[in-house]
Amino acid sequence: MSLNLLDQPGFWQLAARAEKMNPSVIREILKVTEKPGIISFAGGLPSPKTFPVAEFAAACAKVLREDAHASLQYAASEGYGPLREMVAAALPWPADAAQVLITTGSQQGLDLLAKVLIDEGSRILVETPTYLGALQAFAPMQPEVVSVQSDDEGVVIDDLERKAKGARFLYVLPNFQNPTGRTMTEARRAALSGRAAALGLPLVEDNPYGDLWFDAPPPAPMTARNPDGCVYLGSFSKVLAPGLRLGYLVAPKGLYPKLLQAKQAADLHSAGFNQRVVAEVMADGFLERHVPSIRALYKSQQGAMLAAMREHMPAGVSWNTPAGGMFLWARLPEGMDAVRLLPRAVEHNVAFVPGAAFYADHGDPRTLRLSFVTASVDEIRIGVAALAQAIRLAGQK
Amino acid sequence: MSLNLLDQPGFWQLAARAEKMNPSVIREILKVTEKPGIISFAGGLPSPKTFPVAEFAAACAKVLREDAHASLQYAASEGYGPLREMVAAALPWPADAAQVLITTGSQQGLDLLAKVLIDEGSRILVETPTYLGALQAFAPMQPEVVSVQSDDEGVVIDDLERKAKGARFLYVLPNFQNPTGRTMTEARRAALSGRAAALGLPLVEDNPYGDLWFDAPPPAPMTARNPDGCVYLGSFSKVLAPGLRLGYLVAPKGLYPKLLQAKQAADLHSAGFNQRVVAEVMADGFLERHVPSIRALYKSQQGAMLAAMREHMPAGVSWNTPAGGMFLWARLPEGMDAVRLLPRAVEHNVAFVPGAAFYADHGDPRTLRLSFVTASVDEIRIGVAALAQAIRLAGQK
Repeated sequence: MSLNLLDQPGFWQLAARAEKMNPSVIREILKVTEKPGIISFAGGLPSPKTFPVAEFAAACAKVLREDAHASLQYAASEGYGPLREMVAAALPWPADAAQVLITTGSQQGLDLLAKVLIDEGSRILVETPTYLGALQAFAPMQPEVVSVQSDDEGVVIDDLERKAKGARFLYVLPNFQNPTGRTMTEARRAALSGRAAALGLPLVEDNPYGDLWFDAPPPAPMTARNPDGCVYLGSFSKVLAPGLRLGYLVAPKGLYPKLLQAKQAADLHSAGFNQRVVAEVMADGFLERHVPSIRALYKSQQGAMLAAMREHMPAGVSWNTPAGGMFLWARLPEGMDAVRLLPRAVEHNVAFVPGAAFYADHGDPRTLRLSFVTASVDEIRIGVAALAQAIRLAGQK
Repeated sequence: MSLNLLDQPGFWQLAARAEKMNPSVIREILKVTEKPGIISFAGGLPSPKTFPVAEFAAACAKVLREDAHASLQYAASEGYGPLREMVAAALPWPADAAQVLITTGSQQGLDLLAKVLIDEGSRILVETPTYLGALQAFAPMQPEVVSVQSDDEGVVIDDLERKAKGARFLYVLPNFQNPTGRTMTEARRAALSGRAAALGLPLVEDNPYGDLWFDAPPPAPMTARNPDGCVYLGSFSKVLAPGLRLGYLVAPKGLYPKLLQAKQAADLHSAGFNQRVVAEVMADGFLERHVPSIRALYKSQQGAMLAAMREHMPAGVSWNTPAGGMFLWARLPEGMDAVRLLPRAVEHNVAFVPGAAFYADHGDPRTLRLSFVTASVDEIRIGVAALAQAIRLAGQK
């Protein structure tokens, strides 16, 4: 018996892309944070208080009473028709349900786009920093990932212009971004949309958090300005629940058939039962009543985190105040390193994700991402105080 | 506004793999067969009579009553622990739950294997004919697919030997194969397993139908003989329901971490709610009571199809008698072509899948796949008579 099969000649020769796959930093970190009693600001886990459990239970019972056979059978790769109609109708531009592809979480949309748009060595552009899951989804197709400079308003247009030549697309998450929480301004969206169209640069616009605004909705998606030049990704994970694994993409009609074929090859279709349950829950306008309660909860939790940060953080720590979403972005004093801080924070029973994980290259080692949605207000107060203490102690070394 | 966006220079430049993606023959055929009132022997759709609807309803209610928050939250990419334990315990060789990866249908297992094991141009070996969905899952990674000669007992060892050099793996579906219904004999399994090990050739063993035997179970999986040299794929689609999209793979410990990373990048994890529902349904040994009723139903439906074939088919049409599963494999008289026959059959309100769709190359145009599980016994009788009439008329031209 061999201890390392991958060393056996002939056996399990890996694809080049797999040789390069390494355990995700976030994954390893989340293992550390599984310590019992820890207060985690690390994962991007929606508050379970927001899961509409009673509505799901009623919908499961109804779907199995009225539509059991179809919901449990193989189904079309495009997704369940009424759900596709609901998605199309809710978009703030005129879209046809025929352009909507239901995916197994919006993560799968990124996987399908990678397969259809990325060759080995293809240049793709991302924000600085960017969503780690997108980097992971694109990586197997072996692109050259190029970071475009980004400021508090979003992508820096001049830098985009310098780097756009030959790029297959720009991946952008304009609303309450993961990891920074920042929102692209209306002016920047107009500029980006115009420049991208002029440059012939497609946009992949990811919008999992757009509904989670606190005081005012964010500006319209860039896809609304140029639907033929964008693929738009959405998710039910943040407004209903992640554990059903349902998201969607909206693609130009010329591109849709290729994404559909990639979808069929990837998992045939997303669970028809889940699609009907979600459609049933949403059928009477439920989200219009439900989502405001998520906004209010997350706003109060963000408020608690900001108050605790102001009270406890030592001088030299800075952070932003996102207008929605799930994350704050913070920066340690000069000379400190968030990766080195993490094990010390865990000793103080608090966890976060070092910002370096979210950069395609040259990460800022002083940054960290703090989720304010999973922990309760009481836990947030305790956790921020503990994190501040860990920072203070680390800074004394 | 452009009618064909893919023609716009700069916009939506496709990956080379996507340029080669073309609509699946099966997909286009299934559209033809959506004509109302048609009797379809085409799709591989399990009989909805076999879906345990009451058990699913009870399990959904219980999971949402007792474990709602965890079942609706993000979860580990490996899958739900108790379900992985159940899968491992049911395998006929000593496997650790740590080797089990829950997938979004077993189709996803093929997608993950393609990503981890196939480089552009990599040689991979398949049976003749083979499962179309596997060809579709492998295609995006651009392998060189090589068909190994196969007879009624399975893969022909001498031909395998000639073609094995440098191959990344042999994909094999030994039980009640899709599309042929054939089962690899014990002697052939022993020979194949031994030769593959000697050649250093990994096996990907797909077993979605193994539980659907009629009179006696098939021989043990080849993975049981050499677990370190095989990846094994299984599914809940045929013993519970396809609409939950749950399958699994069992991988050697050295290979597992790469498949896990590919899984995480593809859709983070399979629906935790569905995994708990399936685990709940299976917890009291339900499958031991349930699966025999599926076997009995499919055996009776196969019997009805065979009887109708004997009664109605013109001379020169031949077919096999699979010992389980969902499909018969038939062959038209010399000079006939199943692709040309299909539209004429549809005019007679009956559909099937031309066998040519299932060959990596040089398909036998006279072959066709007939599913006996979706249509009822009465429909099978009417449909086979109609198909026989269509064949008779086509043969007169």
